[in-house]
Amino acid sequence: MKYTNQKIVLKNRPVGFPSINDFEIVNETIETINYGEVIVKILWLSLDPYMRGRMSEAKSYALPLQLGDVITGGAVGKVVFSNCPKYKQGDIVEGFTLGWQEYAKISTNNIRKIDTNLAPIQTAVGVLGMPGMTAYFGLFEVCKPIPGDNVVVSAASGAVGQLVGQLAKIAGCNVIGIAGTEEKCKYIKKILNFDEVINYKKDNVYKKVKEYCPDGVNIYFDNVGGKISDDVISNIAPFGRIGVCGVISQYNLTEMEAGMRVQRAVLTNQASVEGFLVFRFEQRYPIARKRMASWLSKGQLIWKEDIVNGLDKAPEAFIGLMKGKNFGKLLIKVSD
Amino acid sequence: MKYTNQKIVLKNRPVGFPSINDFEIVNETIETINYGEVIVKILWLSLDPYMRGRMSEAKSYALPLQLGDVITGGAVGKVVFSNCPKYKQGDIVEGFTLGWQEYAKISTNNIRKIDTNLAPIQTAVGVLGMPGMTAYFGLFEVCKPIPGDNVVVSAASGAVGQLVGQLAKIAGCNVIGIAGTEEKCKYIKKILNFDEVINYKKDNVYKKVKEYCPDGVNIYFDNVGGKISDDVISNIAPFGRIGVCGVISQYNLTEMEAGMRVQRAVLTNQASVEGFLVFRFEQRYPIARKRMASWLSKGQLIWKEDIVNGLDKAPEAFIGLMKGKNFGKLLIKVSD
Repeated sequence: MKYTNQKIVLKNRPVGFPSINDFEIVNETIETINYGEVIVKILWLSLDPYMRGRMSEAKSYALPLQLGDVITGGAVGKVVFSNCPKYKQGDIVEGFTLGWQEYAKISTNNIRKIDTNLAPIQTAVGVLGMPGMTAYFGLFEVCKPIPGDNVVVSAASGAVGQLVGQLAKIAGCNVIGIAGTEEKCKYIKKILNFDEVINYKKDNVYKKVKEYCPDGVNIYFDNVGGKISDDVISNIAPFGRIGVCGVISQYNLTEMEAGMRVQRAVLTNQASVEGFLVFRFEQRYPIARKRMASWLSKGQLIWKEDIVNGLDKAPEAFIGLMKGKNFGKLLIKVSD
Repeated sequence: MKYTNQKIVLKNRPVGFPSINDFEIVNETIETINYGEVIVKILWLSLDPYMRGRMSEAKSYALPLQLGDVITGGAVGKVVFSNCPKYKQGDIVEGFTLGWQEYAKISTNNIRKIDTNLAPIQTAVGVLGMPGMTAYFGLFEVCKPIPGDNVVVSAASGAVGQLVGQLAKIAGCNVIGIAGTEEKCKYIKKILNFDEVINYKKDNVYKKVKEYCPDGVNIYFDNVGGKISDDVISNIAPFGRIGVCGVISQYNLTEMEAGMRVQRAVLTNQASVEGFLVFRFEQRYPIARKRMASWLSKGQLIWKEDIVNGLDKAPEAFIGLMKGKNFGKLLIKVSD
């Protein structure tokens, strides 16, 4: 075996928003694999906001990338060579560390086979993968919705946000989505049937949330942090729950931004704030995946993808993601 | 019956720190009471930080005082006249709304009889009353300590803080107290046996917490908010729990102070922040009170009071409380 692999590596640590020059395309040859490993031809890449954290040296829940490392991230691919009895050529697999490259040499401990009958294979890194699990467990296990709750979700047309709102509707809640363009807001309201939408670039978020939730926000599913979150949390209801899923507004700051401390709102309202990483629910993914697939097949869940063609477009698309330019779950189609 | 009552009323809404001129002494005559009411002669007043909130018009969990209203607050007193079959002259009672006055005319729904054999009667508004219940339920039910946890408590020599630290020691935790004078710090360490102390007026809180908790803070019992809390929360451990009991650093600000948003620390560490008011645990007070009384009688809990004599000294003592001048639970001895 011998594979010529094109991969995208971290050239410089981004300062503020990443730039094209922070990434570099490199070629390598893969000639050997160990027992228990396979070669996966990458078909789809998942681009997710959390990946920005890996590009920095700051302490986080995962080790940072080193300069020269391939950009790691979720992907779907096809096994083209196997040195593991459990996997054969042609198997479609998903893995969280396959990365931005044409071919990944990887231990089969770090991939899983996909049931290709459930839905299009790229959903394995979308509605049936990490973003879907994040929405399901973050909403149902961390925020614990009760029918009638006012649920506010930020980044509401993104990979996680679009699902959180729809799941909250399935759970009988009143859903308010926050997004950054009229097109996104229209889609969320008309197609996804959210009850209300707020365009944070145009509207006064504090006033709009107050208008739509006169009794307060029972659940805030927070993907963004920053000023938007200050405005939502200022409307929190007694015993409200705030699930912190992401803080994309803060990932590209070069200095920490001061803002509203939550303590007073949280104390007065006996509210709670909880940060979570989806991995803690890993043992229950199969349950959630089955339900999500069922809702998807019945049309109770709609899933919007934003597809960009070509591995070499990944850096530019990722920079766009940091700025909210994607509309739906951002995927790179690497190969057929 | 006829009682001449001296009472302290709210004359002006304080702007920033309260001043002596915001309070006024007024005399009145009590000549009638309804069925189900009693006249209570006040013996002890409890002065607590939350009372500052009632003096402002801002929305909070309780209705604000109106100008001219007697300052409400917890007190212990003796029934001197009864128009309720369940209470007789001489009964020692405690109530949360008895207020800053010599005699209170009050419905017996709003008082409870004290078991005078348990401990000195003023503990009914201290270690066996609201502050004690706050420490017990805030620590055990909201923060959920596990032996070995690093527990940081702010305002550590105050009514609640002194108990939180000692209860955490009983629960097998490593306890770090934060206070504002050397005398307080020494007391907490030498007499109450906290493991470590930090003088926030002298020490770098962030660095000291990091030094004492290299694996991070598992529990932060927060009585103060503000910069001290930013420094502690920056050291939160994975799955850390932050109980927000009070934000005394913020009560007397005339403008909201910007500071560290918790979202990033909370997300990265899957930590949680929860505000609580002790009343939600009301049905379980008797259980906690019995345990606290037992620990107290065995010397496993030490209880420090800061006693000021005379009803007329209440305003000045309250202003001192806002500035951290009290050392231990602040009480006004109104009468023998």
